[in-house]
Amino acid sequence: MRASILRPRPLSTFDKNGDFLMRTASIITIGDEVLIGQVVNTNASFLGQRLSEVGLEVVRTIVVGDDYDEIMRAFKEYNASYDAVFVTGGLGPTHDDITKKVVADFFGAKLVEDADVLENVKDRLARRNIPLKQVNRDQALVPEGCTVLMNHWGTAPGMLFEKDGKFFAVMPGVPHEMRNIMTEHLVPRLKEKVVGQVIRHKVLKTAGIAESSLFELLGNLDDILGGKAKLAFLPSQFGVRLRISVKAKTAEEADVIADEVAAKIQAKAQKYIYAEGEVDLEEALGNLLKERGLTLAVAESCTGGLISHRLTNISGSTAYFERGVVTYSNQAKVEILHVPEELIQKFGAVSEEVARAMADGVRAISRTDIGVSVTGIAGPTGGTEEKPVGLVYIGISDVRGTMVDKHNFPDERVRFKDRASQAALELVRRRVLGLA
Amino acid sequence: MRASILRPRPLSTFDKNGDFLMRTASIITIGDEVLIGQVVNTNASFLGQRLSEVGLEVVRTIVVGDDYDEIMRAFKEYNASYDAVFVTGGLGPTHDDITKKVVADFFGAKLVEDADVLENVKDRLARRNIPLKQVNRDQALVPEGCTVLMNHWGTAPGMLFEKDGKFFAVMPGVPHEMRNIMTEHLVPRLKEKVVGQVIRHKVLKTAGIAESSLFELLGNLDDILGGKAKLAFLPSQFGVRLRISVKAKTAEEADVIADEVAAKIQAKAQKYIYAEGEVDLEEALGNLLKERGLTLAVAESCTGGLISHRLTNISGSTAYFERGVVTYSNQAKVEILHVPEELIQKFGAVSEEVARAMADGVRAISRTDIGVSVTGIAGPTGGTEEKPVGLVYIGISDVRGTMVDKHNFPDERVRFKDRASQAALELVRRRVLGLA
Repeated sequence: MRASILRPRPLSTFDKNGDFLMRTASIITIGDEVLIGQVVNTNASFLGQRLSEVGLEVVRTIVVGDDYDEIMRAFKEYNASYDAVFVTGGLGPTHDDITKKVVADFFGAKLVEDADVLENVKDRLARRNIPLKQVNRDQALVPEGCTVLMNHWGTAPGMLFEKDGKFFAVMPGVPHEMRNIMTEHLVPRLKEKVVGQVIRHKVLKTAGIAESSLFELLGNLDDILGGKAKLAFLPSQFGVRLRISVKAKTAEEADVIADEVAAKIQAKAQKYIYAEGEVDLEEALGNLLKERGLTLAVAESCTGGLISHRLTNISGSTAYFERGVVTYSNQAKVEILHVPEELIQKFGAVSEEVARAMADGVRAISRTDIGVSVTGIAGPTGGTEEKPVGLVYIGISDVRGTMVDKHNFPDERVRFKDRASQAALELVRRRVLGLA
Repeated sequence: MRASILRPRPLSTFDKNGDFLMRTASIITIGDEVLIGQVVNTNASFLGQRLSEVGLEVVRTIVVGDDYDEIMRAFKEYNASYDAVFVTGGLGPTHDDITKKVVADFFGAKLVEDADVLENVKDRLARRNIPLKQVNRDQALVPEGCTVLMNHWGTAPGMLFEKDGKFFAVMPGVPHEMRNIMTEHLVPRLKEKVVGQVIRHKVLKTAGIAESSLFELLGNLDDILGGKAKLAFLPSQFGVRLRISVKAKTAEEADVIADEVAAKIQAKAQKYIYAEGEVDLEEALGNLLKERGLTLAVAESCTGGLISHRLTNISGSTAYFERGVVTYSNQAKVEILHVPEELIQKFGAVSEEVARAMADGVRAISRTDIGVSVTGIAGPTGGTEEKPVGLVYIGISDVRGTMVDKHNFPDERVRFKDRASQAALELVRRRVLGLA
């Protein structure tokens, strides 16, 4: 079974000099809010990425509630089964945060006040003019004997235990605090500890092609993978991500193989691939526009500002993004973009003609190289037999003229907006590259 | 320990008539992409929500890779430990999808072609003009003896096993397919099966107050909770969510207690609470605007279209959202909003004066009741000693005049945009209610 080819079997975690080496990792997320789905577990995905990057194999990720016995049971099971355990959550200042108590009991350590942590807590609260309360002071308590991972981004410190050949790290659940503690304190230590086989991933991001069509387009995967790599197809409303995974002795060796596989895939599906690596389309397009010295203005109706939002999520977008307008009402289309009122009356606001006039209009008023427009029916209401929910027209105006693409994305409202925005950004990319 | 008061201890899963009752549930997510963090596990959070709603206690959520042995091990452990198991992922048409094979082996069933599923696959591909390939045909294979959960939103069917007093459901990993199968096929069945104690949650959403300040504002929690409920503080860049959890014999009884607790919290923190229930601020504000018959136009700089995007995520927003402009360049601020050029030169684009002119300008050109503006420094570059990254001015123009609020959100770019957009929407809400 191909899927298991690359999964390392349990091996000794000591090298020939008797030094401890880490190979397997698990992630424990603590919090009722995650179990009952009120919070999406982005912490586990962040940790999965970082741990894979340093070469650890993440074998299991688990979520348990804010319950002493459940947390203790998970600590025992996972500490016994894996070389490294990464715990997040339950370290906050309020009554429902009990992780620290369980950690202390698990390691048989008592809680003692750490002067540096207390200083940090005091300092952070003072800067925000929040008075120091007992609940804040309690955050300076840490289990005796742990390595304190100073939290410069919040008040709850991280804690690291290295005992009996195991690595056990505990971090707060607030995402940016956990991320910073991981990046500053833990990743550097892990890089020293993890050796042996390395698993590397390389991602190719595609847009505008269905998963099964892409699978067929690539043909015989054995020819592409040569028994040395795995390939996964990961579809979403933004397109299909291809993930190449390679296991090798060194990162360099793995990267060479991954690059070879990527080149073979590029040869077959280049038109659809907008990026190598975890790069979003708005960033890939931004780099392309910067490279070519082109500027862009956006006129949105049904996407409601999402395209401008995505473009401006990229630092430096000010170099190519001049302005956006969300002309939701017909009046706004007429007044800001100078779309002729008769055009809207004759063809409707959702039409090829209006998409064309919007793209021309936004390019004219902003004097950019490219104008892009989107008009469609996001739903769930407002559809007709002739113009159903999901219908969308995308216009592009540039020095070569004006073109309009028609799509149908029958989907719920927010997914529709995602898909329409992705189609618009992809059309600009292809237009700039001469592929549309 | 308060946190464990409400966790049911293992009880009999048979009622006094000997009928099978379900109490505990677990969620198994399958996919290397989730383990290594390339995909965020939104499926588990969706399932956690639905299962809690029907009264099941979600005890553990686990993620395992696309590996036969790991999946089999998880099936054995979780099927033995919990009344109901919900599995997602690994049912796609490509080679790395092995869940169906493991499920068949786990239940000792062979895979047989299901005629209805094959019809559905053929029909869906035909509609999209995709030819039927062997990989598509294989999707019609299901383990003998399972209940097929027809997937009207994709090609991979869901499967349900009810055996030896256990409930074991397997669904595709594509989020909207899983959601629809869950909602259409499984939730109705679960409602019949789950009895006994019910856990109900009620959420209050706050904005504009820090977690520890809110904790202090509420005072003695025992007075609020009366030993009958749990309260969790869930902070994010959008504010602090308060979750009240109640365990009772019936949903009605639990709801009465939750309402009592909510009323006590409202009495202390009303100003900060914009919604009861899982309602986003853009929806709460939208309802308020609709109720009052008010219209809104938005002028954004640093938030780059996010405010318009959030407002238009709400179906029916066309009733109150007239237009938005993303005046990223100074030229756009002058041309579209008629911000005087001298004002920008004298005070800078990020200033109280420009925020005021933008809010007035967008209200004037759109002739709406309210104009809201945001100008700030999203970073990571562009900050100065005097105007650091994170500085943001929010302007509101309405019949009562124009006001500007100043904030500092030193954070990474996308979180900054989230926080600034939240502060702007919250300011509009308070302004409409006469609280600002």
